[in-house]
Amino acid sequence: MWVSVDLCVVPLGVGLSLSSYIAACKNVIEKTGLDYEVGPNGTAIEGDWDEVFACIRACHEAVHKKGAARIYTTLKVNTRIDRKQSFREKVPSIKFALNSEG
Amino acid sequence: MWVSVDLCVVPLGVGLSLSSYIAACKNVIEKTGLDYEVGPNGTAIEGDWDEVFACIRACHEAVHKKGAARIYTTLKVNTRIDRKQSFREKVPSIKFALNSEG
Amino acid sequence: MWVSVDLCVVPLGVGLSLSSYIAACKNVIEKTGLDYEVGPNGTAIEGDWDEVFACIRACHEAVHKKGAARIYTTLKVNTRIDRKQSFREKVPSIKFALNSEG
Amino acid sequence: MWVSVDLCVVPLGVGLSLSSYIAACKNVIEKTGLDYEVGPNGTAIEGDWDEVFACIRACHEAVHKKGAARIYTTLKVNTRIDRKQSFREKVPSIKFALNSEG
Repeated sequence: MWVSVDLCVVPLGVGLSLSSYIAACKNVIEKTGLDYEVGPNGTAIEGDWDEVFACIRACHEAVHKKGAARIYTTLKVNTRIDRKQSFREKVPSIKFALNSEG
Repeated sequence: MWVSVDLCVVPLGVGLSLSSYIAACKNVIEKTGLDYEVGPNGTAIEGDWDEVFACIRACHEAVHKKGAARIYTTLKVNTRIDRKQSFREKVPSIKFALNSEG
Repeated sequence: MWVSVDLCVVPLGVGLSLSSYIAACKNVIEKTGLDYEVGPNGTAIEGDWDEVFACIRACHEAVHKKGAARIYTTLKVNTRIDRKQSFREKVPSIKFALNSEG
Repeated sequence: MWVSVDLCVVPLGVGLSLSSYIAACKNVIEKTGLDYEVGPNGTAIEGDWDEVFACIRACHEAVHKKGAARIYTTLKVNTRIDRKQSFREKVPSIKFALNSEG
């Protein structure tokens, strides 16, 4: 099953600056070969369900290993069986809808 | 790795009443033997990471099979390595904090 | 406009125990007179849109005042114009759906 | 109070294609003059708390008016009192962290 997610990993108890932990996740995701894009409030990742969730688990493991004892992650998980949709089509389809409606 | 999640499955394109789809998820979760509790805005589930996410995948499969072509799920995912915490301790610990502070 | 939300306030940079901050939010919510229920992964609150969001703002202010310099909150926000639905009906309606389908 | 949010509005009971509803939200946000950026899984918006939440309310009103009887929105809400941070700094700060660590 194909899945497209938005991943936002928040380590707790490590102070106010989280960017080095997000960077550690980016390294983990990069190594999987899954298609992804880092955004300001989350990272879009997509691929086979089991590969995507193995990647998310690996992100948790990397952030714990880096010193965060507690992690709070939020996920948006999109699946559809009518057709395959990539996260890369979403922003263009909104722009297309805007133009269509004038 | 132990994980405690909040699961909220929203089928799209199936009309306004979603409770039969949530009921289908409840049946899937019940069969796994994982500890869970249905709430008004999500279902708390906890257990081993791989079992919990296999359960969430099975929920998506059940809701698609029931006729929803598209699903939008939101998840809150909690892991900690300092100690094991069950979702069942959380509400009591908030009450304890309230009493402690008078 | 009537709104039913799930509120989860996560203070950052304050260590691993968050229950005293959630307790502070509970006090804020209690004073508003809005209907609410604390759950393991979030607090259900409902009422008039402006009152509910004024309450959420007051929660952020209380948690900052208590010492958290940074807050990451997740919200699920439900509105509907076909009929009024309380969060208190949701769990019973799932049970009803389960029984109806046998 | 300054706030930076991630907004994801999901209309229910309107079929599988949501882009025209998201486009309607984009129009609403554009008119407010708030800084924003549409992403694949949500729209980053930031500004004064009351203005941002008035904008989110206006999005709900616009999507209901366009025909959606029920809306399920998820929000990530960031506030901090130590310093002002724009969503536009987040992706660069992750890249900076990656480079710093080699």
